[in-house]
Amino acid sequence: MDAILSFFELFLKGLQTPTLGFLLGGMLMAAMGSRLTIPDQVYKFIVFVLLMKIGLRGGMEIRNANLEELLLPALFAVLTGVIIVYLGKILLAKLPGINVVDAIATAGLFGAVSASTFAAGMLHLDDIGMEYEAWVSALYPFMDIPALVLAIVLGRLAIEKSGSKEEGASLKKKRKPVSINEIVKESLQGSALSALILGLILGLFTQPEPVYESFYLPLFRGFLSILMIIMGIEAWQRLSELRRVAHWYAVYAVIAPLLHGGIAFGLGAIAHHMTGFSPGGVVLLAILASSSSDISGPPTLRAGIPSANPSAYIGSSTSIGTPICIAIGIPLFTELATIVF
Amino acid sequence: MDAILSFFELFLKGLQTPTLGFLLGGMLMAAMGSRLTIPDQVYKFIVFVLLMKIGLRGGMEIRNANLEELLLPALFAVLTGVIIVYLGKILLAKLPGINVVDAIATAGLFGAVSASTFAAGMLHLDDIGMEYEAWVSALYPFMDIPALVLAIVLGRLAIEKSGSKEEGASLKKKRKPVSINEIVKESLQGSALSALILGLILGLFTQPEPVYESFYLPLFRGFLSILMIIMGIEAWQRLSELRRVAHWYAVYAVIAPLLHGGIAFGLGAIAHHMTGFSPGGVVLLAILASSSSDISGPPTLRAGIPSANPSAYIGSSTSIGTPICIAIGIPLFTELATIVF
Amino acid sequence: MDAILSFFELFLKGLQTPTLGFLLGGMLMAAMGSRLTIPDQVYKFIVFVLLMKIGLRGGMEIRNANLEELLLPALFAVLTGVIIVYLGKILLAKLPGINVVDAIATAGLFGAVSASTFAAGMLHLDDIGMEYEAWVSALYPFMDIPALVLAIVLGRLAIEKSGSKEEGASLKKKRKPVSINEIVKESLQGSALSALILGLILGLFTQPEPVYESFYLPLFRGFLSILMIIMGIEAWQRLSELRRVAHWYAVYAVIAPLLHGGIAFGLGAIAHHMTGFSPGGVVLLAILASSSSDISGPPTLRAGIPSANPSAYIGSSTSIGTPICIAIGIPLFTELATIVF
Repeated sequence: MDAILSFFELFLKGLQTPTLGFLLGGMLMAAMGSRLTIPDQVYKFIVFVLLMKIGLRGGMEIRNANLEELLLPALFAVLTGVIIVYLGKILLAKLPGINVVDAIATAGLFGAVSASTFAAGMLHLDDIGMEYEAWVSALYPFMDIPALVLAIVLGRLAIEKSGSKEEGASLKKKRKPVSINEIVKESLQGSALSALILGLILGLFTQPEPVYESFYLPLFRGFLSILMIIMGIEAWQRLSELRRVAHWYAVYAVIAPLLHGGIAFGLGAIAHHMTGFSPGGVVLLAILASSSSDISGPPTLRAGIPSANPSAYIGSSTSIGTPICIAIGIPLFTELATIVF
Repeated sequence: MDAILSFFELFLKGLQTPTLGFLLGGMLMAAMGSRLTIPDQVYKFIVFVLLMKIGLRGGMEIRNANLEELLLPALFAVLTGVIIVYLGKILLAKLPGINVVDAIATAGLFGAVSASTFAAGMLHLDDIGMEYEAWVSALYPFMDIPALVLAIVLGRLAIEKSGSKEEGASLKKKRKPVSINEIVKESLQGSALSALILGLILGLFTQPEPVYESFYLPLFRGFLSILMIIMGIEAWQRLSELRRVAHWYAVYAVIAPLLHGGIAFGLGAIAHHMTGFSPGGVVLLAILASSSSDISGPPTLRAGIPSANPSAYIGSSTSIGTPICIAIGIPLFTELATIVF
Repeated sequence: MDAILSFFELFLKGLQTPTLGFLLGGMLMAAMGSRLTIPDQVYKFIVFVLLMKIGLRGGMEIRNANLEELLLPALFAVLTGVIIVYLGKILLAKLPGINVVDAIATAGLFGAVSASTFAAGMLHLDDIGMEYEAWVSALYPFMDIPALVLAIVLGRLAIEKSGSKEEGASLKKKRKPVSINEIVKESLQGSALSALILGLILGLFTQPEPVYESFYLPLFRGFLSILMIIMGIEAWQRLSELRRVAHWYAVYAVIAPLLHGGIAFGLGAIAHHMTGFSPGGVVLLAILASSSSDISGPPTLRAGIPSANPSAYIGSSTSIGTPICIAIGIPLFTELATIVF
């Protein structure tokens, strides 16, 4: 009961934090019909700087890290990505009015990872002084890629299955076989993962401390605040798309971030007891699972499962999943860590 | 006489301040045929950051302010906006070669407010250490919106009048009735006012101090310097448009910023004596009146009075009004305040 | 021998400096097929800020400088630009499979100057604490413009010559006469030189210290790091173009930066002994010569010698010349200066 009260206090305080405040501010502006926009080119640059900052710091600190410790959390990250997609296939696809292919695509997006939400989580931990491992940003692709690959593979198998029933084998020949290598390559080459990997490499092999301290670090908080406004505007605008699809997507989008984060939190707690994975690391693993991809996931899914309905998966992720994760997920898992550990 | 000398000294010194220097530098580049441009997307982002900075600071400081004090200056801001438009209708429209609809649109733009000029004025007061009320940025819409609304209403009435004479009542039916609500909503939803309002709300209801100190404040001066270069380039390029319309527009554009600023300064002085409105606040009220809209005004007027000639109102405002306001208005009203109060 | 060892040590250390590291990182990303891009509008803004920073600092410090000292280095800068183009015409044009017009255009681009490479050189000297004259950034146009003008004049003469042989005099009439004034004006009005000149003027005649310290200086290192990534991506992508032209271009592009830099270093050393030109100034003169134009040169050449093949001159400059200059030229000439002076 104390924990619940304490969480609500934290939530109310959270509304006042700039990160969440700016997200809600963006939603408010969009709701009031404002023509406020941040140019797309600036948005891309901001995301690039955020991911470079995360990557550089990770790379610089990994130099002195014991990378054996990374193994178990990385394995759990993969496992979480896989569980999320299968859960979506089992639960979401069974709900009325929901197409199995759309369900799988949506679960894939919720299994994939949001760089901006992850950045917001990191800034939150930095602000409250909860420490985490240097290499935790390297967990990103371990959850992101398996989720997207599995969703595309399952999605295509489901299409194949329905295709063979309805339209006979004629279509099968036309369809390219699912190449997992191709999807993994496609994911790694995407702009988000590329920026993160570039930052990690530069942090690891060069000495970017002066440029990190004078540029990437000071801009981080401000660029994140602008990204939150953009995400808020986007979230509101996508709501209308979500209205066009089955209401169960909204239900899923509310529950999924907390459920997925909870699963990853549990796995992270195991790693904590087995290999000493830090509480902050457990929180960030939970936030990775709780977030849903906003930059690289949608185009990858669109290319991988062209017949899935983007209104369903982007709408539920951007309009509901992300705000829930930032507003409730981040403070919830942080609070949970201070109670549990 | 001393005051005049003192003003000229200030003006010469002003030429060396970066704000005015960068404006003149932009004009010089354009005059020399330079292909130097700042991409439009970057310009929009810069304006957004400037307005967020002004809004955030206003919002943060309003928390502890006594808002009753805002009433009289806000009323005077509305009054100034209204006076400027009526003055334009009476004076400018009587001059030879000037169409009454174009005169009203031009007066509307001079009554509306320039965010960048306002930012330059604030930075000037900050630099010389003249204090002003926290809520003074909230005066912006109180002058901007009434001026635009009144100009559009008067402009449409003037068209209606000339239309009924020349073309009979047939046109009347086609024309949409003037909806003041619609124009107010349109103004509030514009990107400039939206950014300012978003900043005010976030400053008031969240705790953005860390992001304000680490991002919005340090970038303010630099982004303003770039905005001044853009405005200088634009001012020179618009001069050719101004040559195509009656020369009286140029005369109006030279006198208007100082006349309008003087009126607002007088009203501000009344508020100073009645409710203790600060000298810095009086200067900023005068600068609001002296400035003419460069971001949100032109598209609003273009939509509201489609038959008015943009070369007339944008040309006189951008090419002459704004440089006069920055080069002469800002130092003049500041100097006046140190003498008068 | 010690010098060679010392250079190799410096080179290995250089690989770890962010400047070179970020360039190689960009190349690596492009080589791995990454879709990472920095929007063109952001790129243009970054270049503008870098050049303004260099110009402002130059302008501010020139105030107290003895400008007579500038004469000899400026003369040597012109001389270097001229020598580079004639060397290219004599050496490169004689190689098998190379068209004389393409050879002249390529030499013109190598004679022209890269703002980003120059910025990287300045940052390197600042970091190691090697001092240079305030006015050294003013040398930029003295090398850039003569090289471009001479290349365009020689290129057109070569076309004329071959044209009169092959096609008779009919074409001559159509071709515009070469106007040197026109090319100089065109160069000065380009966005890169304009930004540098604007910075110099503002630094000289206004007092931009506050905005320089709060904006241009702190962003310099970070913006340069992003520019290096962009240049690395571009370098890799242009390699495929280079494959389409004669291999001798690649050989030229490897040797030219070091040869040209060496010539300028020699001339700079003469200025050092005659008028006390600083060692840091000599290094920067060598870097100006070693660099090849990436922003303003290509469009100027394209307009000036439309029949020259851009794959040849842009390919060899961007893909090989610039990386060689940054990776080898900058540390080499710096090391040379510490040994020689």
